[in-house]
Amino acid sequence: MRAVAGVRLGSAAAGIRVAGRDDLVVIELAEGAECAAVFTRNAFCAAPVALARRHLRQGSPRLLLINAGNANAGTGRQGLQDALTSCQDLAGAAGCNIEQVLPFSTGVIGENLPVERLRQVIPDAMADLEPAGWERASRAIMTTDTRPKLASRRFEVDGVPVTVTGMAKGSGMIHPDMATMLAYLATDLAVERKLLQACLAAAVKPSFNSITVDGDTSTNDACVLIASGASSLPPVTDTNSPIYERFAQAVQEVCMELARDIVRDGEGATKLVEVVVEQAADEAEARDVAFTIAHSPLVKTALFASDPNWGRILAAVGRSGLEGLAIDRVEIWLDDVCIVRNGGRASDYTEQAGASVMRRREFTIRVSLDRGGADARVLTCDLSYDYVKINAEYRT
Amino acid sequence: MRAVAGVRLGSAAAGIRVAGRDDLVVIELAEGAECAAVFTRNAFCAAPVALARRHLRQGSPRLLLINAGNANAGTGRQGLQDALTSCQDLAGAAGCNIEQVLPFSTGVIGENLPVERLRQVIPDAMADLEPAGWERASRAIMTTDTRPKLASRRFEVDGVPVTVTGMAKGSGMIHPDMATMLAYLATDLAVERKLLQACLAAAVKPSFNSITVDGDTSTNDACVLIASGASSLPPVTDTNSPIYERFAQAVQEVCMELARDIVRDGEGATKLVEVVVEQAADEAEARDVAFTIAHSPLVKTALFASDPNWGRILAAVGRSGLEGLAIDRVEIWLDDVCIVRNGGRASDYTEQAGASVMRRREFTIRVSLDRGGADARVLTCDLSYDYVKINAEYRT
Repeated sequence: MRAVAGVRLGSAAAGIRVAGRDDLVVIELAEGAECAAVFTRNAFCAAPVALARRHLRQGSPRLLLINAGNANAGTGRQGLQDALTSCQDLAGAAGCNIEQVLPFSTGVIGENLPVERLRQVIPDAMADLEPAGWERASRAIMTTDTRPKLASRRFEVDGVPVTVTGMAKGSGMIHPDMATMLAYLATDLAVERKLLQACLAAAVKPSFNSITVDGDTSTNDACVLIASGASSLPPVTDTNSPIYERFAQAVQEVCMELARDIVRDGEGATKLVEVVVEQAADEAEARDVAFTIAHSPLVKTALFASDPNWGRILAAVGRSGLEGLAIDRVEIWLDDVCIVRNGGRASDYTEQAGASVMRRREFTIRVSLDRGGADARVLTCDLSYDYVKINAEYRT
Repeated sequence: MRAVAGVRLGSAAAGIRVAGRDDLVVIELAEGAECAAVFTRNAFCAAPVALARRHLRQGSPRLLLINAGNANAGTGRQGLQDALTSCQDLAGAAGCNIEQVLPFSTGVIGENLPVERLRQVIPDAMADLEPAGWERASRAIMTTDTRPKLASRRFEVDGVPVTVTGMAKGSGMIHPDMATMLAYLATDLAVERKLLQACLAAAVKPSFNSITVDGDTSTNDACVLIASGASSLPPVTDTNSPIYERFAQAVQEVCMELARDIVRDGEGATKLVEVVVEQAADEAEARDVAFTIAHSPLVKTALFASDPNWGRILAAVGRSGLEGLAIDRVEIWLDDVCIVRNGGRASDYTEQAGASVMRRREFTIRVSLDRGGADARVLTCDLSYDYVKINAEYRT
């Protein structure tokens, strides 16, 4: 994993939920670094989300404080106080203002944050700070994840290398309990804040906002993009800058790779399926149809069974609420096999051809609506026994 | 089961999917009977749905033809031709016009209807017609249902008894494959067609349109209300009629009982849970919140595990998209146990109290939003291993 100049990471074991494993991470940004972020739109957002939003408005962050094992969500006033206390503890240890600390939590909802445990190991995490800390940090933020998620891109500008490195956790998109999605990206470039925010928003849409494991949106989701400014290259200040396009491309690639890894590691997932909807009247309807397919429990159980049960896909398209859909013009494909044409099963379709695609570990469901020029892509996984097992047995 | 004067039912074994069990039903209506119906809104509606809609516009039905085992959906032009052929076969056997036959199918999508098999046993079903045929018919229309669903109400007007009897099938709300929802109700009253349709629409909303097993809507759903007119009572012609209110009440009760039975028999279901959302700004938002909870795979797996994982319910409320939701004013209850108040876990809540409700076979999740006077009720069930098993292994 490529380190990013101007960004150091450290981790420590606070024993928040499980003893003996790192569950607290500190990310330290160089002075003058800029920070952009997007957060969950869930109305019941967690205390650290509310506080991180506020601190981000108030100034330039120097430190990110992340814990796994406890979401500090559904904790009312006490939750906000606990998030403040932890920020204060880290600010005190680092000698900065409390507003310069952004807090993030993931884990069980509704239990109070064990602030004392966090406080005790904050000095350990600070002492552990190093540019090469990405790998350990990416493990420390895991909950039901079965593996860490890291990605990196590098490009050169006039012989000067620019790095974009990111890590993420999340094992459902997006679970209120143990599978909140958190993602942290950093570059050594200097990038103006507004531009950084626009770049992040553009990268998040086709990546983290186009994946689904079970359609649930966490109270704690957050994605942060840091520009440390440690690079010798001049600051990027507008979208016409020759560097901006390559930077934005690298950010999007890192986001896409992390998003794909999250779905691949979806709770109980055995398959990665891309749902592509083409020739829609506009992007909104393309996304509606794609998500209706990607969320359907019947489609997802058929994926698990490798059953080319195309009727379920057709029915999902039909119930997605498109005004005046001409079903005779809809085509549905599994990779290169056409399954639906002229309002019914394609005449040249065979079960063997469909089944051979469905047995693949990764494939594409493509729907062509013949209504316009817009399209959308969504990544999803199957619904297996293990999904029920993980979510029925967790906590008990 | 109470028979309805002016309505006879017969069934026969056509061997459409399984040999040796009845899978074809004919319902015969007295001359002059009226018929109201509601159908699926899925754009990929099945051939019999398209044809039944058309025939209903063209005249007064005398015969309903229902088959299980094959949905005749996703079958294109051939499907429509096959539905027409079957209607013609029955019309020929009964000596009526083809427009007087309404066709209904439930079963596998995308296979052509075996019209020859239907044709061979139509005379058997006709010979079998009797007013007491409800029980056998309710079994003949089953697919993944584990038990037949029947309900009946009776009231008296001036000493004359009026009967409303209904049967339904459906084991998911509402599956594209084997669990299409079909429901047939009949009364001996004479009721004007417009009134009958309004009565059905009003009864369907809180019953069949307020249940969910997995959020999928079939290509074949239909609900029919027959008024045979065999009663000696005068025809009901307006909503101010003293009889209308009692009739409408009986229809709604029968629909509610059948809807409840469908969820209880949901694929893999072990629990029946009513989600009640109160004090919403309007009914639309009340239903949005109720369905967001009722569809959440995380809530449903928690129900299966009897785990009072209230964070999942809170997160579902939070992501249901209510503009300006004041989370401090939201209360969430499991039966009589308050779990969320003031934006977090209720101070007097205990896990034992929550768990004792969750272990019940039937209970209520109640959410109070404190935003207005509207409410909504939705019935749902849990998501179990058997749901995955049934839907992953079916067809293979």
